Amino acid sequence: MANVKFYYFPVKALGESVRLLLSYGGQDFEDKRIPMEDWPAFKPSTPFGQMPVLEIDGKTYAQSFAISRYLGRKYGLSGANAEEDLEIDQNVDFVNDIRAKAASVRYENDPEVKAKMHAEFTKNVYPALLDKLDEIIKKNNGHIAAGKLTWADFVFAGMFDYLKLMLQTPDLEKKYPSFQQVVDAVYSQPKLQAYLKQAPKAEF
Amino acid sequence: MANVKFYYFPVKALGESVRLLLSYGGQDFEDKRIPMEDWPAFKPSTPFGQMPVLEIDGKTYAQSFAISRYLGRKYGLSGANAEEDLEIDQNVDFVNDIRAKAASVRYENDPEVKAKMHAEFTKNVYPALLDKLDEIIKKNNGHIAAGKLTWADFVFAGMFDYLKLMLQTPDLEKKYPSFQQVVDAVYSQPKLQAYLKQAPKAEF
Repeated sequence: MANVKFYYFPVKALGESVRLLLSYGGQDFEDKRIPMEDWPAFKPSTPFGQMPVLEIDGKTYAQSFAISRYLGRKYGLSGANAEEDLEIDQNVDFVNDIRAKAASVRYENDPEVKAKMHAEFTKNVYPALLDKLDEIIKKNNGHIAAGKLTWADFVFAGMFDYLKLMLQTPDLEKKYPSFQQVVDAVYSQPKLQAYLKQAPKAEF
Repeated sequence: MANVKFYYFPVKALGESVRLLLSYGGQDFEDKRIPMEDWPAFKPSTPFGQMPVLEIDGKTYAQSFAISRYLGRKYGLSGANAEEDLEIDQNVDFVNDIRAKAASVRYENDPEVKAKMHAEFTKNVYPALLDKLDEIIKKNNGHIAAGKLTWADFVFAGMFDYLKLMLQTPDLEKKYPSFQQVVDAVYSQPKLQAYLKQAPKAEF
C-alpha cells in the first residue's frame, strides 16, 4: 500500500485498532485526527458519513471492524483456517455487543432513565457478558480468540479504555485481570513501540 | 460438514441468511426453530447466551454475520480478493448500523420517547442512511457489494422484512426498488427453491 491515510476523531475508541495494526504491519500512514469541529465539513466525503475511514491510494474504506479484519489478514494476524476466522469474527462481534449495550446507556439523554438503565444493566446484564468474555480469554491463553495473538486482540486493546468509559467502570481490569492481559499482549509488541512513543495521548 | 444444526427463533430476522446460505451450499441441516418459551432452557448451552447458533459436528458457533461470512467463503460467495472482502464487510456493517439504529427505537419501552425518536429518526436520520444504501446498491448492479452476488446479499435479503419492521415502514421497497432487487436476486436462486418451498412461513 503506497499512500495510506487514516481518519478518525482524536480518540482511541473504534479507531485505535487500525492505527495499531498499520503500525504493526510497518505501514507508513498519515494519522489524521479530525477534531469534532471539523467533522461536519469532512463527513459528506466519507463512504457512509461515519469515521473511521481508511484511505489507500485514494480509495476510501469505512467500518472499524471490517478494516481491522482486512489489516489483520494482510499482516498475518488472522486465523489459520476458515473455522478459526469464524471464531475470531464471532468473538469480536461479541465484544462489540458488550460495547454497544453499554453505549446505549452512556449516550442516553434522559439522566433519570440513564441512571436506572445503568443500575439495571450493572446488576442483570453486564456480569454475565463480562464473565463470559473472561472465560473466553482464559480459554484462549490470554487472547480474544484462536489461542494466539490475532487482530481481535488489537480491536479489544484499542477500545479498552473506551469500553471502560461506556461501562462506567474505570477499574474493570481489577475484577478481570484477563482483560488487561489482552491489552498488554498488544501494547508490548516491539513493532508498536515507535508508534506508541509518538502517538498523541488520548484518554479513551 | 457432516452433521449441521442451526438454532434460531422461528423468524427470519438475523437467522434467515444462515438458512439461505446453507441451502445455497447444498448442505443438509436440521432447521431448529426454538420457540420463545423454550429459549431460557436452551440459552445457557449457547456460546454467548444468544442465537443464532450454528452447530457443525458438535462444535457451536454464534453471531449471525460471522457465520454468514464463513458460509459465504465456503460456498464461493465472498470477494475475489482482500479488498473486495473489505468492501463486502463494510457494507454489511453499514446495513447492520441501520438495523441497530431502527431497533433502538423499536425496542424503546417508553411509548412517548419511542414516538418522538421515530419521528426524529424518520425525519433526520433514516433518509440519509437509506439513500446512501440505495446509491451503493445501484452502483453495485443491484447487489450490496462487489458488483455481484455475495453473502452480503443473503444477509440483506434474509433480514429485509425484519428491517422494515424495525423501521416501521412496511412499504420500504416502494421508495427504494433497489432494495427489492437485492431480495429478488437471492430468493430467485434455483438452489434455494427446495428450501423455500418447505420453510415454515415467518412474518419477519
